[in-house]
Amino acid sequence: MTAAPAANHPATSPKSPAAQLTDAQRERIESILASLTWEEKLAQVQVTFKMTTEECLEAARAGIGALFWPGNAADANAIQRAAVEETPHGIPLLIGLDVIHGQRTIFPTPLAMGASFSTAVARSCATVSAAEARSGGVTWTYSPMVDVARDPRWGRVAEGFGEAPLLTAELGAAMVAGYQHERLDEPGTVVATAKHFIGYGAAEGGRDYNTVDMSDQRLHSVYLPPFAACVDAGVGSVMASFNTVNGRPVHANRRLLTGLLKDELGFTGAIVGDASGVENLIPHGVAADLPDAARTSLSAGLDIEMGGHLHDPDAHPDHPALLDGDDPALVARVDDAVRRVLALKLALGLFDNPYVDPGAEITAPTPQHLASARAAAEKCPVLLTNDGSLPIAPTARRILLAGPAATHTDHLGAWVQHFAAPPTRSLADALAAALEARAADAGTPAPELTVLGGQDPLGVTGEEVDAVAAAAADADLVILALDEPSQLTGEATSRADLHLPGDQAALVHAVAATGTPLAVVLVAGRPLVVEDWIEEPGAVLAAWHLGTTGPEVIADVLTGAVNPSGRLPIGFPRHSGQLPATYDAHENTGRPATRGGEMVKPVFDMGLDGPANLQEFFTSKYRDLPLGPRFHFGHGLSYTSFAYRDAALSRTTISRAELDVGAAVEVTAAVANTGERDGEDVVLLFTRDVLASLAPAVRRLAGFQRVAVPAGGSQAVSFRLDRSHLALWDDDGEGWRVEPGDFEIRLGDDPDADPLLLTVTD
Amino acid sequence: MTAAPAANHPATSPKSPAAQLTDAQRERIESILASLTWEEKLAQVQVTFKMTTEECLEAARAGIGALFWPGNAADANAIQRAAVEETPHGIPLLIGLDVIHGQRTIFPTPLAMGASFSTAVARSCATVSAAEARSGGVTWTYSPMVDVARDPRWGRVAEGFGEAPLLTAELGAAMVAGYQHERLDEPGTVVATAKHFIGYGAAEGGRDYNTVDMSDQRLHSVYLPPFAACVDAGVGSVMASFNTVNGRPVHANRRLLTGLLKDELGFTGAIVGDASGVENLIPHGVAADLPDAARTSLSAGLDIEMGGHLHDPDAHPDHPALLDGDDPALVARVDDAVRRVLALKLALGLFDNPYVDPGAEITAPTPQHLASARAAAEKCPVLLTNDGSLPIAPTARRILLAGPAATHTDHLGAWVQHFAAPPTRSLADALAAALEARAADAGTPAPELTVLGGQDPLGVTGEEVDAVAAAAADADLVILALDEPSQLTGEATSRADLHLPGDQAALVHAVAATGTPLAVVLVAGRPLVVEDWIEEPGAVLAAWHLGTTGPEVIADVLTGAVNPSGRLPIGFPRHSGQLPATYDAHENTGRPATRGGEMVKPVFDMGLDGPANLQEFFTSKYRDLPLGPRFHFGHGLSYTSFAYRDAALSRTTISRAELDVGAAVEVTAAVANTGERDGEDVVLLFTRDVLASLAPAVRRLAGFQRVAVPAGGSQAVSFRLDRSHLALWDDDGEGWRVEPGDFEIRLGDDPDADPLLLTVTD
Repeated sequence: MTAAPAANHPATSPKSPAAQLTDAQRERIESILASLTWEEKLAQVQVTFKMTTEECLEAARAGIGALFWPGNAADANAIQRAAVEETPHGIPLLIGLDVIHGQRTIFPTPLAMGASFSTAVARSCATVSAAEARSGGVTWTYSPMVDVARDPRWGRVAEGFGEAPLLTAELGAAMVAGYQHERLDEPGTVVATAKHFIGYGAAEGGRDYNTVDMSDQRLHSVYLPPFAACVDAGVGSVMASFNTVNGRPVHANRRLLTGLLKDELGFTGAIVGDASGVENLIPHGVAADLPDAARTSLSAGLDIEMGGHLHDPDAHPDHPALLDGDDPALVARVDDAVRRVLALKLALGLFDNPYVDPGAEITAPTPQHLASARAAAEKCPVLLTNDGSLPIAPTARRILLAGPAATHTDHLGAWVQHFAAPPTRSLADALAAALEARAADAGTPAPELTVLGGQDPLGVTGEEVDAVAAAAADADLVILALDEPSQLTGEATSRADLHLPGDQAALVHAVAATGTPLAVVLVAGRPLVVEDWIEEPGAVLAAWHLGTTGPEVIADVLTGAVNPSGRLPIGFPRHSGQLPATYDAHENTGRPATRGGEMVKPVFDMGLDGPANLQEFFTSKYRDLPLGPRFHFGHGLSYTSFAYRDAALSRTTISRAELDVGAAVEVTAAVANTGERDGEDVVLLFTRDVLASLAPAVRRLAGFQRVAVPAGGSQAVSFRLDRSHLALWDDDGEGWRVEPGDFEIRLGDDPDADPLLLTVTD
Repeated sequence: MTAAPAANHPATSPKSPAAQLTDAQRERIESILASLTWEEKLAQVQVTFKMTTEECLEAARAGIGALFWPGNAADANAIQRAAVEETPHGIPLLIGLDVIHGQRTIFPTPLAMGASFSTAVARSCATVSAAEARSGGVTWTYSPMVDVARDPRWGRVAEGFGEAPLLTAELGAAMVAGYQHERLDEPGTVVATAKHFIGYGAAEGGRDYNTVDMSDQRLHSVYLPPFAACVDAGVGSVMASFNTVNGRPVHANRRLLTGLLKDELGFTGAIVGDASGVENLIPHGVAADLPDAARTSLSAGLDIEMGGHLHDPDAHPDHPALLDGDDPALVARVDDAVRRVLALKLALGLFDNPYVDPGAEITAPTPQHLASARAAAEKCPVLLTNDGSLPIAPTARRILLAGPAATHTDHLGAWVQHFAAPPTRSLADALAAALEARAADAGTPAPELTVLGGQDPLGVTGEEVDAVAAAAADADLVILALDEPSQLTGEATSRADLHLPGDQAALVHAVAATGTPLAVVLVAGRPLVVEDWIEEPGAVLAAWHLGTTGPEVIADVLTGAVNPSGRLPIGFPRHSGQLPATYDAHENTGRPATRGGEMVKPVFDMGLDGPANLQEFFTSKYRDLPLGPRFHFGHGLSYTSFAYRDAALSRTTISRAELDVGAAVEVTAAVANTGERDGEDVVLLFTRDVLASLAPAVRRLAGFQRVAVPAGGSQAVSFRLDRSHLALWDDDGEGWRVEPGDFEIRLGDDPDADPLLLTVTD
């Protein structure tokens, strides 16, 4: 339709698998294609899950193009061997698996990695995941999820990088690079899948799979940039989403799959359906039966059906092809899909060597991988509040650790496989060890740690609350480890009520009532509503689900061995009824509020004030809530403090013509650590278009940079602002354009900070 | 862009004011226009509010085109006289006022009238309102509000007819007819204003004035039909809405104001801005200053600025025109706007007689108007639950009426003027009278009525709860009258939490705990979240804000003198976090749920079940809620019971070609009153497109009919289904089209009822 915001968007990414092929490989694709029957082509463009290795072998012998991982390297090799040696064309398989934030060694959930604001963290997760998965024969993962997710009711908010398009785009692209390396034929790669295209995170009411409706303006401004970034990063496949967009399911949506993704973004990889996404077109009401659904999907641009219905010898022994090959347009479309599938297999080098070394299979976390996961996890916890209660003071001699997350090992979060490595110890054990280590370093005796864990997070009892309160009265400091279980996050786990489940808030109230200093650790997959208790503890740490090394990392943050540096990748709402409450999705409105609502009968009289009144009453707010979320996007404290100094622009004016040919403005500043501890800071850069033909967003994230600054030291940061950060999309216009005028540029998460001014000239 | 769903949509409605003009009147418009200066033209195309009559007179002398009502007939006449006799061109004024659901005699709120499912109710409200308002000199009202409103957090949900486009369209059109009569030059008319164009009810998060984003598909399917219906009904003006649509504020939105409303719908009246809507473009961020805002609005298609900025002698004594008249396109646009304003004045007959008879001014409800309001209000209460606790049994001898709404007279609801007539007595007084009357009729002694009212609905105290509970223990029946104050509904009253305010639920719990039979009356402006107490009372009546006669009508429903017949025009959600939860806005999804969620850790293992699983877990629902709203759209009980018999279609197939030329299918049935009391039933007709190229809505309201059926009797009903009920709008296609295939047709609010089948052939 129109160009993407960055000028000169490439028609085909040079990093894409298709671009990695030699001419000989391209010829091989054509040669194979010419030799395939219609049934064989349909078999190539599907992926299915088989319960047993024997079933996998049968499917491989029947020529299926892709299977889910059978469970180990030897079996993966066996099914590759069946495909290569026992089928007429010897085409190796893609072996897919949901490797989302780790295979054996589990990294923080994607949302927690979002809190790191670190592309290095995201890339390390993907690199380790790919090495472990590929060592077992996996060649294809369904990650990263780059659905911008602005509604924490949606359980899959845990699987993405939060509410900001730019953050999601950059972390998603970093994961693609980690999975696919520079070239897919390097060791330890898997094909990445950017998912779910598109708008899945915008499900109405945050209810999974629900209706999605949005303008092209929002689609392009919010939901598309991460996919554009992944396509630029060369992602090999993109997964279609379950949802409709404006009435049409994406699996049946030619405008989006072919028009937007393939034609406009220049995606040359394979579009894979989500699980049963093609047959889901039947309950969606747009397909009468499976053949209708399959024909509709393939015609719309889907390349790989997930489910194995297109060619299923089990279901149709005499006629395994679901569709007839009598429609030339459909045949051409399937030929195109087969080419895309074969290109991935060739780029992976599977035709040269479809096997892995079973002796080198990684079946448990290696020390190196654990160290990588721990380094990543250390950047993710977000210190929400702190009055000095954290880190645990050396003077605290009697410490009580209580709550459901004190003694369990449920830190892996959403979407891990059953063979993922759980933490080797609980937070209680990790904290005891950390406190002992700290004491040993200091040459002092370790404090006394009392642990009262084991409560059911879905049903804390009054007796348990009483017991914790009684123990708290005797402690110098209480740490409450509260819990949203992993299984209440992820797919199909939408929650209307975002309070801590199981009345865990009663633990906070009871401990706070004792007067003993209290810090709360939230082990949770998403933002929670904490309004009812957040002001009671002295400190609150959002620890997310940090993965295999979670307990050790949380313990290190509690003791101060790690200085917390995460920032919220999505805001914490005050109430479920406030949603959506996004930092930037909305405009200023014509009646912005300057203070929150009050549940009182107003004293004015409309008949006297008249319709032209604009007093504070008639502003955009809830009568029963203060303004904004409880904690906004980008919020996060440290045990030290930072100041931004000497912020400047390399130039204060730039013309549209310059922007169109790729010119940029550099934003520089110095980050000073003004506290007493070394620390890392995430510097955020926001832009605000002051005046435009469309109501501009209140602010847009335009950059982020993580820097380590020693106590008392300073570190330079630099950001590049180009056309992509300044353009707007207008449905009534010609798509992306930069408008002349002033832009406010702010460093840091304070929306009221004094801005730098950049003027774009005509 | 494309045709509206009904074939042959007229370019200009024959009922429009413009169509009522004679050729001579048209010539007069041109003649006046030719004589006006640029400044005089700008003065004509604005409406402003002045605090005093003296200020009104000054503005009239300065040639302003429209003012808000100065307060009485004599003053209205005086300002008309100033305009006619003391300005060069003698153009009479439009005198505007927000007459929303009554002027002196207040009818039920629009939402409550929505519950009547009666065009006669809506029309009677408008007819009475117009008579009262015009008697005082008002010629223009800003009603009906036909914003489809699907989110009860939005306070203005009270001002519209609920969540269904068809209901909103038909009641809105009925109000236009009531305000404007057949011809505007008849006595007792006012110009109606359909508002707010468009999408205002879709404010994100239900937060007033907030961002609106939607596809054209949703815009046309949900939000546009009521405006199309009002334009067809000849509405004289349409008000632009405060919100943006897809980034562009409507006041600055040429595509919507000119393209959609004027060109596509053929609207020939005047588009008026909302209060300060033009200057609000400045905080919106799309206008630099007032002149910029005004130029943008006028150019977009706005005809009348609300605020009086275009020509303001007070603000600019030497240069009262805000804009220069040096842009021919702008001048042409303003000329068009002036023509539209003058057409309204001519159609009203103001050039012939701008005055009203001060001796005939209606300054208090007349008996006839009160009777009309009471007849309307009787059709609005919705009986949500009933185990037989209502009507009040003659055997109940000791009745306790308690709660905040027991003794107050706050029944008028949102948007009434300070001179509106409140109820003359409280519910307590009305119920006492009704019980006495019933007893007198039966020749029995009246029951003993104890009243414990006066609680603050925003803060019921524990002592008050205890007192009510103590009294309840001694009663045969308790009626709790609970309250959402009028001032917590309407504009700028968004609420994130939709529970009863002020812990009124404690009253329910306390009374229920006594074991005394309990009925609850909800005096409220919108759907509330009642999940925490709804199963405790034996009966719950949603009484809305019923207007001047509210207490008497509620009393009559309680005693059984009136058999309740309202049905919900919008569902009651289970939780604020469930919103939006609309009966038909959504599609079925590809993974519809058949049962609600459970807050338990699921027992399956993804690694075993695999990605193709479709077990009930992976369906579209909240883990912490049962499916759907607590009470769905269309729900409403009666003291009798009804059955639908002999439902049939006049034909079971119809071709697209027939539909395109206006053919229709008749749906007929007999409504049998199977109970022991006379009653009225609202028969609802729903369609469901079984299979389409777009995911069809789960169901769409396609008709409604209110019938009175005596006990044991039967009444025939008939509905007409035409193209407008069967078409879908496709953003990727050519707009509205009917697709061949089957449609399920259901009578009544049960979505699982056996359907009739209509087949549309190609």
